[in-house]
Amino acid sequence: MVVILKHNTTREETQEIIRWIKELGNVEVNPIYGTQTTILGLVGDTSSIDINRIQSNSHVENVKRIQEPYKRANRKFHPDNTIVDVAGRKFGGEDLQVIAGPCSVETEEQIIEVAKAVKAAGATLLRGGAFKPRTSPYSFQGLGQNGLELLLKAKEATGMPLVTEIMNINHLPLFENVDLIQVGARNMQNFEMLKELGKINKPILLKRGLANTIEEFLMSAEYIMAGGNENVILCERGIRTFEPQTRNTLDISAVPLLKRLTHLPVIVDPSHAAGITWLVEPLSKAAIAAGADGLMIEVHNNPSKALSDGAQSLKPCEFEAIMEKLKKLAVFEGKHIG
Amino acid sequence: MVVILKHNTTREETQEIIRWIKELGNVEVNPIYGTQTTILGLVGDTSSIDINRIQSNSHVENVKRIQEPYKRANRKFHPDNTIVDVAGRKFGGEDLQVIAGPCSVETEEQIIEVAKAVKAAGATLLRGGAFKPRTSPYSFQGLGQNGLELLLKAKEATGMPLVTEIMNINHLPLFENVDLIQVGARNMQNFEMLKELGKINKPILLKRGLANTIEEFLMSAEYIMAGGNENVILCERGIRTFEPQTRNTLDISAVPLLKRLTHLPVIVDPSHAAGITWLVEPLSKAAIAAGADGLMIEVHNNPSKALSDGAQSLKPCEFEAIMEKLKKLAVFEGKHIG
Amino acid sequence: MVVILKHNTTREETQEIIRWIKELGNVEVNPIYGTQTTILGLVGDTSSIDINRIQSNSHVENVKRIQEPYKRANRKFHPDNTIVDVAGRKFGGEDLQVIAGPCSVETEEQIIEVAKAVKAAGATLLRGGAFKPRTSPYSFQGLGQNGLELLLKAKEATGMPLVTEIMNINHLPLFENVDLIQVGARNMQNFEMLKELGKINKPILLKRGLANTIEEFLMSAEYIMAGGNENVILCERGIRTFEPQTRNTLDISAVPLLKRLTHLPVIVDPSHAAGITWLVEPLSKAAIAAGADGLMIEVHNNPSKALSDGAQSLKPCEFEAIMEKLKKLAVFEGKHIG
Amino acid sequence: MVVILKHNTTREETQEIIRWIKELGNVEVNPIYGTQTTILGLVGDTSSIDINRIQSNSHVENVKRIQEPYKRANRKFHPDNTIVDVAGRKFGGEDLQVIAGPCSVETEEQIIEVAKAVKAAGATLLRGGAFKPRTSPYSFQGLGQNGLELLLKAKEATGMPLVTEIMNINHLPLFENVDLIQVGARNMQNFEMLKELGKINKPILLKRGLANTIEEFLMSAEYIMAGGNENVILCERGIRTFEPQTRNTLDISAVPLLKRLTHLPVIVDPSHAAGITWLVEPLSKAAIAAGADGLMIEVHNNPSKALSDGAQSLKPCEFEAIMEKLKKLAVFEGKHIG
Repeated sequence: MVVILKHNTTREETQEIIRWIKELGNVEVNPIYGTQTTILGLVGDTSSIDINRIQSNSHVENVKRIQEPYKRANRKFHPDNTIVDVAGRKFGGEDLQVIAGPCSVETEEQIIEVAKAVKAAGATLLRGGAFKPRTSPYSFQGLGQNGLELLLKAKEATGMPLVTEIMNINHLPLFENVDLIQVGARNMQNFEMLKELGKINKPILLKRGLANTIEEFLMSAEYIMAGGNENVILCERGIRTFEPQTRNTLDISAVPLLKRLTHLPVIVDPSHAAGITWLVEPLSKAAIAAGADGLMIEVHNNPSKALSDGAQSLKPCEFEAIMEKLKKLAVFEGKHIG
Repeated sequence: MVVILKHNTTREETQEIIRWIKELGNVEVNPIYGTQTTILGLVGDTSSIDINRIQSNSHVENVKRIQEPYKRANRKFHPDNTIVDVAGRKFGGEDLQVIAGPCSVETEEQIIEVAKAVKAAGATLLRGGAFKPRTSPYSFQGLGQNGLELLLKAKEATGMPLVTEIMNINHLPLFENVDLIQVGARNMQNFEMLKELGKINKPILLKRGLANTIEEFLMSAEYIMAGGNENVILCERGIRTFEPQTRNTLDISAVPLLKRLTHLPVIVDPSHAAGITWLVEPLSKAAIAAGADGLMIEVHNNPSKALSDGAQSLKPCEFEAIMEKLKKLAVFEGKHIG
Repeated sequence: MVVILKHNTTREETQEIIRWIKELGNVEVNPIYGTQTTILGLVGDTSSIDINRIQSNSHVENVKRIQEPYKRANRKFHPDNTIVDVAGRKFGGEDLQVIAGPCSVETEEQIIEVAKAVKAAGATLLRGGAFKPRTSPYSFQGLGQNGLELLLKAKEATGMPLVTEIMNINHLPLFENVDLIQVGARNMQNFEMLKELGKINKPILLKRGLANTIEEFLMSAEYIMAGGNENVILCERGIRTFEPQTRNTLDISAVPLLKRLTHLPVIVDPSHAAGITWLVEPLSKAAIAAGADGLMIEVHNNPSKALSDGAQSLKPCEFEAIMEKLKKLAVFEGKHIG
Repeated sequence: MVVILKHNTTREETQEIIRWIKELGNVEVNPIYGTQTTILGLVGDTSSIDINRIQSNSHVENVKRIQEPYKRANRKFHPDNTIVDVAGRKFGGEDLQVIAGPCSVETEEQIIEVAKAVKAAGATLLRGGAFKPRTSPYSFQGLGQNGLELLLKAKEATGMPLVTEIMNINHLPLFENVDLIQVGARNMQNFEMLKELGKINKPILLKRGLANTIEEFLMSAEYIMAGGNENVILCERGIRTFEPQTRNTLDISAVPLLKRLTHLPVIVDPSHAAGITWLVEPLSKAAIAAGADGLMIEVHNNPSKALSDGAQSLKPCEFEAIMEKLKKLAVFEGKHIG
């Protein structure tokens, strides 16, 4: 950490600040006295020092962090890839996992039909929404607990591990047979939820918030890991920008950046990123080429009757055609789907 | 709502789509057959129609909403200002309310001292954080329930109504004596929390999310109002942009825009918007000049020892000096503080 | 400037880097050897050091600038406000200047009528576009040289100093009788144009680019000043964000920030920022309250027949009503319009 | 185009507006009278109608464009890919073009060495900057005309077609032997320059502005094409977002979107998008996988001595290693490099 002092700070005031910082954490403080500015270099474990407290000192002009504020998620302290095992499906290794299914569960028939179709096409995990985050209180909010039961029937019928979103930490007991619990983009900084998910053992799929930096994303993973649950899979799903043609802007650089900064698996959701069906194929290919460990794709057996997000859902036959191409690209990249 | 059909849609297909849309909601559908494009104009109450479902029809190129999707928050259906009464302090009328206090409660002595100081300077409500949303799991998380008790002591000692943030809906019973419950920016789209807050009677202070549009902000207010609780106060607190000099960018236009779109009171938080102490004064003045119904300002008796957000906190003497100016500006604007 | 070296840099490599940096500029380099990271503190005049060259050294992890990269525009080296005199109208002092007029000049009758109306209402300078930057090649591009002549007639008829935009540096000879040359947002980083404008003596009105940081804005002012022309007035006119309700988002914080970082005058264009007529009043008031030295407002005698930007233009009677309020607010702020 | 009228517009006023719109352009106007809102559907060629003029009518609430405002760049009117031939290198067909070279030309030795190296590695065109757009007036501005001469020597020595940036339209005569003239991101909306480039015959490489939408990007291409020069190649190079880890955010979706909206070739510049050397490989692969027609990559023989943008430049050996992988990926995608 580097602390820049204000112009007119005296040597005595500087000495006092050095003493104060040493009290705040177990660090050494090295001053550099410049002609115009004095800089303090903090050496040691600065992750426990609250940058805001230092910034609030009236003699401090600016504070710049040099080390990443995350530890357990940091590849520096854990050079090898973490492999997260979701009911036998391994994320982070040579297998590319493809999670597929409808945005919302609607009926038993629908979810079982889609589940069978995506399995046949090569998807390795089933997704489906029972509790749905919707911008409008007047939109379909998902089937809730009943939806979860239908999803479990589809899991049973196909043997596919199940991924679904939690929106209320009080629902956790209902998720006992869910294999991978999704934290949606809007809850990425619902810290109370993250803390609770840190206390369980189940793998967590953490989606990046719409306007969250990569560092904030990793700090949210750190919340879960700090609680003891190291089974976290990260999902890039598009960020909010000024461009109106796509629902969000897929931040493809986030894939190689995250793979370098953290040892956790990283997947991409091209369906939510773009919000447009025909962009799913090129964005899925880009994600694999950039090094993603998996994909999450919306598929619906009848998109125009879907109760939510139909515009971005593929039909099973479209999904099948894309999967053929993705399997070949995976092989080209030395990986394997299914 | 206007539905634009794809280029090659036939008259028969268009007729079928018209029938389908009529089934979806109680609307009339008027087609305009152009040389290149057919447009459908939907007339009636379109707020119950799910725009995603229409968008997912394979013949639909695009759907554009014309009416606002919010009803209870909409000024069109409620032309007069709503006055929200928080323990006698009225938001939305001729009184300008100033909520002040520290980011985090730390000790009984601290909170009572600050409370007395801000009251003396003219603040009308006391704020203080007991449950704190922090990006890092290693930062101070607030004193929690103990902090809430200290806040209530300060309320008692000064007679000021109390504003504090809820981060977990399970904590609601602890907020019985809190006068205005704050929903933070990161929870603006925590829909499960909004639904629960819709069931109570207490006023809610809803902060705009970092990257949420004004329409999404109003839809979140609509969630609370749809549940039956119409006591919602909106707070603009800065949005995320590319500019690095300020923590966030205060969207000053949001104030007059919200005042026109909704009948709910609108206040501004200049402390979080900028993250810089000396910007609080000019931004507070700009907010009043733009028509805000109130302000929320961080004040700490010893900012450089503050456990969180010290950099943006004013000292009581600085707050007092600013309040003198704000009171005069309020009078100039035909309003009144304190 | 602070240079952070990579993890595994040896002491010998560090010594070599120190020698190399000393060759690049006239600076002292102080190393701090940490347990994990070595930091180099550069002391002296670092403004001539190219940050990119240092960043490209294979041992360098990161470089952080501590001093501002602008000199002539920097208030640190020029504490007093610069007063820019535009044909007798002083920007940057106790007078608040209001520049008003139509987006585009259309006819002699129109521009003279508007000029007289805005003068009567209290505007102190006349604006009007002869060369118009339009997104579409098929939109009206302005009357060009003929438009400039009409503007000069309006200047003569009213005695108001004239402000108009230059889009091509080859047109400079045509601007001889223009009093304040505007560089539009899209040309803020047209460095070739800035260099040429640095060679003349005439005041320049530099508008902030749609997605430019405050530092980049000041660096563009620095381009003009480095050439010898210190008569630069800065204009905040809204930045591009994700919010669709307004054309741009007025960055109101830019006003006090710029006033602190630079000694140059700062004005606000509320018409282009919002793109909505009825927002001009609250945003103008906010700008004055936040400390702006002036305003630039679009006024048209018949907005619905305007050939460009009619939606954001006020009618003369609306402008007059707003000016009444702004004059009073200026007096309240210890300033004066007209 | 759809025009939404304000709430209280009478039938007579509506009739008058319809007459007025018909005068503005050769269109039919169909009204839909709703219970709350009247909508006008405009049918015909609306590209010549100025949306701002309609928006400025006091009875108009909102105007929504349905057809794209670009014609010559629009794939709808030109379904086949345009192949742009740059001295024998074809952009937009089955060949993937790779433009490589240093950010700035520095010496004859340097540019010839790099040119030979990138040619040997498989690059098909040479890039190099002679006129450099730099944020700071104190940074190296390029060698200018001398630099251009050195570039032409490197072209002669290697036979590679030359790509370089124009910053001042008055320099055009110097570009006679340049094969592909680059318009940089900061000049994407320098409309005066675009108009001049529309009058010549040489291919133009148009880079997307930092904060420009895809529609604005295509409108700038339209400026050049409207002048008669249809040899335009589009280059996505990253947009400005809130994420600080990369210099810009590569908008990978822009590749398939542009390929669908326009018939022009689309390439990607991964070096400027990320600003980080080690991201060039994954982003180049993502670009090819997403359907790009080519790449533009910075290579320098001694990046740490580079006078500009060293941090994002590859060494020739690194470039060679990446090219091996890209050639294979191109073949996998049914394309061909070199």
